[in-house]
Amino acid sequence: MIRKVLIANRGEIAVRVIRACKEMGIKTVAIYSEADKEAMHTQLADESICVGTPKSKDSYLNESNIISAAVITKCNAIHPGFGFLSEKAEFAAICEECNIKFIGPSSDVINIMGNKSKAREMMKKAGVPIVPGSEGLIKSFEEARVEAKRIGYPVMIKASAGGGGKGIRIVKEESELENSFFTAKSEAQVNFGDDSVYMEKFIENPRHIEFQILADSFGNVVHLGERDCSVQRRNQKLLEEAPSSILSDELRDKMGRAAVDAAKAVGYTNAGTIEFLVDKHKNFYFMEMNTRIQVEHPVTEMVTSVDIVKEQLRIANGGELSITQEDINVKGHSIECRINAENPSKNFAPSPGKIGFLNLPGGNGIRVDTAVYPGYTIPPVYDSMIAKVIVHGNNREEAINKMIRALDEFVIEGVECNIDFQIDILNNKKFKLGIFDTSFISTEYNL
Amino acid sequence: MIRKVLIANRGEIAVRVIRACKEMGIKTVAIYSEADKEAMHTQLADESICVGTPKSKDSYLNESNIISAAVITKCNAIHPGFGFLSEKAEFAAICEECNIKFIGPSSDVINIMGNKSKAREMMKKAGVPIVPGSEGLIKSFEEARVEAKRIGYPVMIKASAGGGGKGIRIVKEESELENSFFTAKSEAQVNFGDDSVYMEKFIENPRHIEFQILADSFGNVVHLGERDCSVQRRNQKLLEEAPSSILSDELRDKMGRAAVDAAKAVGYTNAGTIEFLVDKHKNFYFMEMNTRIQVEHPVTEMVTSVDIVKEQLRIANGGELSITQEDINVKGHSIECRINAENPSKNFAPSPGKIGFLNLPGGNGIRVDTAVYPGYTIPPVYDSMIAKVIVHGNNREEAINKMIRALDEFVIEGVECNIDFQIDILNNKKFKLGIFDTSFISTEYNL
Repeated sequence: MIRKVLIANRGEIAVRVIRACKEMGIKTVAIYSEADKEAMHTQLADESICVGTPKSKDSYLNESNIISAAVITKCNAIHPGFGFLSEKAEFAAICEECNIKFIGPSSDVINIMGNKSKAREMMKKAGVPIVPGSEGLIKSFEEARVEAKRIGYPVMIKASAGGGGKGIRIVKEESELENSFFTAKSEAQVNFGDDSVYMEKFIENPRHIEFQILADSFGNVVHLGERDCSVQRRNQKLLEEAPSSILSDELRDKMGRAAVDAAKAVGYTNAGTIEFLVDKHKNFYFMEMNTRIQVEHPVTEMVTSVDIVKEQLRIANGGELSITQEDINVKGHSIECRINAENPSKNFAPSPGKIGFLNLPGGNGIRVDTAVYPGYTIPPVYDSMIAKVIVHGNNREEAINKMIRALDEFVIEGVECNIDFQIDILNNKKFKLGIFDTSFISTEYNL
Repeated sequence: MIRKVLIANRGEIAVRVIRACKEMGIKTVAIYSEADKEAMHTQLADESICVGTPKSKDSYLNESNIISAAVITKCNAIHPGFGFLSEKAEFAAICEECNIKFIGPSSDVINIMGNKSKAREMMKKAGVPIVPGSEGLIKSFEEARVEAKRIGYPVMIKASAGGGGKGIRIVKEESELENSFFTAKSEAQVNFGDDSVYMEKFIENPRHIEFQILADSFGNVVHLGERDCSVQRRNQKLLEEAPSSILSDELRDKMGRAAVDAAKAVGYTNAGTIEFLVDKHKNFYFMEMNTRIQVEHPVTEMVTSVDIVKEQLRIANGGELSITQEDINVKGHSIECRINAENPSKNFAPSPGKIGFLNLPGGNGIRVDTAVYPGYTIPPVYDSMIAKVIVHGNNREEAINKMIRALDEFVIEGVECNIDFQIDILNNKKFKLGIFDTSFISTEYNL
């Protein structure tokens, strides 16, 4: 039985997990770096413990300090949140060895899904559509040339160990191939210590549509419908919504079944996300699986009433899913806007600093997930996302109007934020009509 | 078509109405007294206009100033909120005469329902169960004596024009009758300018259960289920929830139908509430109808996903209800805690003053309706309710745990609040088991 959970994270996701634990009667331990002494997550947890200096590698990525903190405080489970150690198979394996329940899938599954070319193979076997591409890794430039011709330009060269947009090169024609191939390999080596790359057809201007799945250790797997995360700036999601305005019920069912098949094929447990690309002809392709909770999980919670973090805890505790596929009804429409402390007029440079006056939006259908408060100083060392505003309306139009209303009320002094930029997006005609793809921000705003 | 609404109120309910208007693309005008220059509602509305000095009778009750404000700002509708002029038939009539849509029922209906003994008669005719009592008004002490004997002690003497717990006397035995009769009459005269009283059987330790109804001008009437408002301190509701833990589906249907019948019997339009008393044997009796939006309306919104204020605006605009009775599904459980700026250790004396640090609760399933912000000064002249925390959970237990978690996060410095007292109630064993009635606070806490 999970009695006490160490949350190996910070910011709003740490607060999110602490809240779920509290509501379930589970004790919590926050960890923090020296930069986070005054952070909200340290104040809301039952206990908190410093694990190192401000740099992430010395604290939130410091595996041995974190394990020690869990042992000292007698935690029998660790929730990794997202980012940091959440998709590090080695860390999950250490937890397993120490008899500390890692709240997520097994280290083996994280390993498989973290290896992009291996994941592709597994998905292909499971019958999940994948982007046309190379069979496994590309070993030489000559092989790259042959494969690119077979697949057809444009193609992508991708680091097998990649993530977060690093180690990816788009190649439009053969003349660019050589340079891109070797750049991708060296970038992969530098960033992931592994220069393996593979090749995929480059899907132009797709929608990014992902399915939330939940799987318990009894083999029950359900999906909670999709999230449309096509509004991105430089591969960073900005605004997410559920449901997607372009899926028919038929396509939703088909993609949902594929997501469930994908999870079953790898013996997945806990919460995870299958990311798909959907092209103009509504073909969908497996992109990758995120083996953790995601930033944008609240939009799914708003339309399904399923508390995904609580389900994670139940599953990790050896429990069965509290819901079957038939129980899941998507109701209304939800949108999330990520509020980042960054300066749109300075090319979205991070804008850390001390918050003065703060007024968060409220009222009917508004949810705010944040770890900031008046007088809080946002440290410069971490991610600039400081709040998520999530709304629920009976339909997409109502949700958009609600979000505009909410963001109008959001006042934060002392740091620059992307609130007005989000309002611009919400007022954009194409966005309102649901006509957009992952190129939306770059083409509409030249960003 | 309603283009621009004047909100004849202040505080969180003014903010609530402004938000709904904004989301519907309707312009808003806030009114304020000199004490409310810095109030949030004046900042969120499109325009704001001062209507008088701090005393309510000079500003928020100043009918001619308010009507002038509406005319000057070219509003074609007025939303009265609750309290103040919301149930004053005369004000609704003036609006009607000035061609300003009063967002509520007609002045005639407000008049009937405001006259408690007339309302009783109407309900009796409509077949709605009423508390056994006198036929109409009691004119003399002698008549009171005869009636009390017929009805059976304990009885209540109630001001016909009453409301808010004033002009009510409970009489346990004949020896108390004379004193109570004349006290009730003089209290009624002082408070309502009308000394008419009537008599009812006093229902001991009932539950206070009310039904939300919506009625359009096409004769469509629906109910949105009940709210259990039995947790009261001196007739002031403190905590409300939906659904009630004591209603069977059968009884809910029966009471809901009675509520709809009641509304139909008086030709009701717009949002309203039928308040019932439910005795130990699950008999229910009509108590009164509130012909306005209520403080506790959000719990109904949380379990039904119907935005009651938006429905009010649609109905006032001559539209049809957006929902039928079949569409309405009560899902999960919602609780509201009223946060009052008052000092529990000083017999709940109001505690106005300047707010310093403020942290409102947030996250999954939490709604906060408030008009306070950091640095805001709560004026001493108005109601002490400064925020409503509303939660939604999949069941009552989850909702209780969620509310405790939320109130734990609620930090407000500079004024005293009843937050800890609300947490005490939520942790109370009897409350948790759903075993309570309107005497709960007085018997459990000696208050």
